[in-house]
Amino acid sequence: MSIFTASSTAPVNIATLKYWGKRDTLLNLPTNSSISVTLSQNDLRTLTTAAASEAFEKDQLWLNGKLESLDSVRTQACLADLRRLRAEVETSDASLPKLSQFKLHIVSENNFPTAAGLASSAAGFAALVSAIAKLYKLPQNMSELSKIARKGSGSACRSLFGGFVAWEMGELENGEDSKAVEVAPLSHWPTMKAAILVVSDDKKDTPSTSGMQQTVATSDLFQHRITEVVPKRFEEMKRAIAANDFETFGELTMKDSNSFHAVCLDSYPPIFYLNDTSKQIIKLVHRLNEQEGKIIAAYTFDAGPNAVIYYDEVNEAKVLGLLYSYFGAVGGWEKHEEVAAYKKVTIDGTNPDIYKGISRIILTSIGTGPQETEESLINADGTPKVA
Amino acid sequence: MSIFTASSTAPVNIATLKYWGKRDTLLNLPTNSSISVTLSQNDLRTLTTAAASEAFEKDQLWLNGKLESLDSVRTQACLADLRRLRAEVETSDASLPKLSQFKLHIVSENNFPTAAGLASSAAGFAALVSAIAKLYKLPQNMSELSKIARKGSGSACRSLFGGFVAWEMGELENGEDSKAVEVAPLSHWPTMKAAILVVSDDKKDTPSTSGMQQTVATSDLFQHRITEVVPKRFEEMKRAIAANDFETFGELTMKDSNSFHAVCLDSYPPIFYLNDTSKQIIKLVHRLNEQEGKIIAAYTFDAGPNAVIYYDEVNEAKVLGLLYSYFGAVGGWEKHEEVAAYKKVTIDGTNPDIYKGISRIILTSIGTGPQETEESLINADGTPKVA
Repeated sequence: MSIFTASSTAPVNIATLKYWGKRDTLLNLPTNSSISVTLSQNDLRTLTTAAASEAFEKDQLWLNGKLESLDSVRTQACLADLRRLRAEVETSDASLPKLSQFKLHIVSENNFPTAAGLASSAAGFAALVSAIAKLYKLPQNMSELSKIARKGSGSACRSLFGGFVAWEMGELENGEDSKAVEVAPLSHWPTMKAAILVVSDDKKDTPSTSGMQQTVATSDLFQHRITEVVPKRFEEMKRAIAANDFETFGELTMKDSNSFHAVCLDSYPPIFYLNDTSKQIIKLVHRLNEQEGKIIAAYTFDAGPNAVIYYDEVNEAKVLGLLYSYFGAVGGWEKHEEVAAYKKVTIDGTNPDIYKGISRIILTSIGTGPQETEESLINADGTPKVA
Repeated sequence: MSIFTASSTAPVNIATLKYWGKRDTLLNLPTNSSISVTLSQNDLRTLTTAAASEAFEKDQLWLNGKLESLDSVRTQACLADLRRLRAEVETSDASLPKLSQFKLHIVSENNFPTAAGLASSAAGFAALVSAIAKLYKLPQNMSELSKIARKGSGSACRSLFGGFVAWEMGELENGEDSKAVEVAPLSHWPTMKAAILVVSDDKKDTPSTSGMQQTVATSDLFQHRITEVVPKRFEEMKRAIAANDFETFGELTMKDSNSFHAVCLDSYPPIFYLNDTSKQIIKLVHRLNEQEGKIIAAYTFDAGPNAVIYYDEVNEAKVLGLLYSYFGAVGGWEKHEEVAAYKKVTIDGTNPDIYKGISRIILTSIGTGPQETEESLINADGTPKVA
């Protein structure tokens, strides 16, 4: 049996200027541009192998060892786009195998527990698109491919680049100008680090897809955010990144996280993602910055209570000194023995029990975009390898 | 010894369209107009007796049995205005005693525990101004007097009327057009009720005076709230009150509470007044309304975690049926034996332990404005009566 395979990894990205609101829900076209930092794949990545064979009877997806449906409109849109581009390649070179007509087997695995509550759809769709694009030997660049990943999950488009990434909202109705672009590569600011505090919370959040449309439809403050606040902040944040200006980058990051959660709260009924633990972390970061007299750490929260705290490596002893003092009892420090040597940083009047609301910490840093890899998750007979 | 005394009570008011932001901090001139419901003095009121005598050596204030300072700029501004108006009265009738030149003894008592966490400054300044205005036999009407109370505490101006009250922000620099007016008297909608859930929370809130100026200075969404959102809502809410339209009144009330807390969250650093218990109450009210298919209860939160839930008496069995089911274990039901007969109202998927975050419930209703009273808190020798 003839089988063609290719594998790619893709990273998680965490927005510093938030995507919240779609102007087109089918094409995942956003109401505002956004910016993110791509996180290191050493700590958080999806690995996807795509295989095509005339012998396959149907498209199939195995995700973290489980057979999953490929029927969603979003996934179908991605596959259709990729096949169309492959068909163009085949048209220009008739000697190529007609992979566009073969069924696909796709196997995907995350190196982090789903239970961590981290949105894995961005890395997932980015890895899916990257692996199939490689399998199909597509000539398109990452920005072009990002438009396909975007149709799978909006923020997935930003996971096609490393470093600092902008998702330019575009204005065309067909979405052809709504794509990810590199703001600055990893090498521009390799000392950018991130600590993720995974908040224990068994309450169900409002799913982001429905939540953002509830905001679009009902928040009286939302239009002002997308037309006035974000466009200005988008340019300011790009300038701060270009200048390696952590203080400005950090302040804008915190303000935009708060602005996003503010329009959630202004929705009707209101949407809450921050819980009391999240709020205590916010206060702790502000108090640390006050104590230092400058911004050395910046929090951001997505559509859930988990905190991501960005900082520059130059301040690692202070930031991790603080986090280890408060959250030393939670899992995730094992690979970071150096923290034990950091001076404890505590802040008067804060709650020493905050750690009780946290299930683990993930220490990571800025990272690269999708990487091709020879590692394969598919056997020669097209079945998934068992981990 | 010759002593002149007068006493007045004044009510608490809870805004349904929030006052948040000053354009003049000395005169307490707001950045937007607001609307409130005056609550019944049977449950929440301040009683103040003012006495003037040539024999008094200095102005003195006893508040809830304790000698308190009268030195604050705000209190001094109120006393100066009242004395100036008295002096005008004395000028027009030379036979009157020169009370404007006498020192004042002021004794004030609340009929509710300060520990309840309810802002008592509104009722306090309203009672102070009412009692002294009566003592001085001032001819000014309540709207005129409200401008004096406003200088003491912004929202105090609204406590000079019963029923539904608007504080018109005005536009003059001297604040002479920033005053309270009656939107509708108690008799227009006497069935409006309120349940106050006092949230147990020992964390210190950001004081509202500094909090609102932090919002004015830093929130990117705030200007939009005061220039676009509130002016429209102000007119809509007045129309809803005029029409006794609880559904519209309730929806606007909830939206404006959320909008106010949204701009707090959008401040930098962010200001949080709602805690996890507050959020659970918000969800509970929305779920009740969903279950009923219409808005029969409306929450609002001031600068703290306490919930005030407005409802019309026609729905009392349902609303109190819900509240008694969830909060029956807390204090405050003693005077309301009828609730035991209400059918329990519970909602699937809600947390039965919410009551643990609540210290007591206060059941009250719409009420009257300041009332003159013969009850006096001052002895014939000018000393405070001991309770």
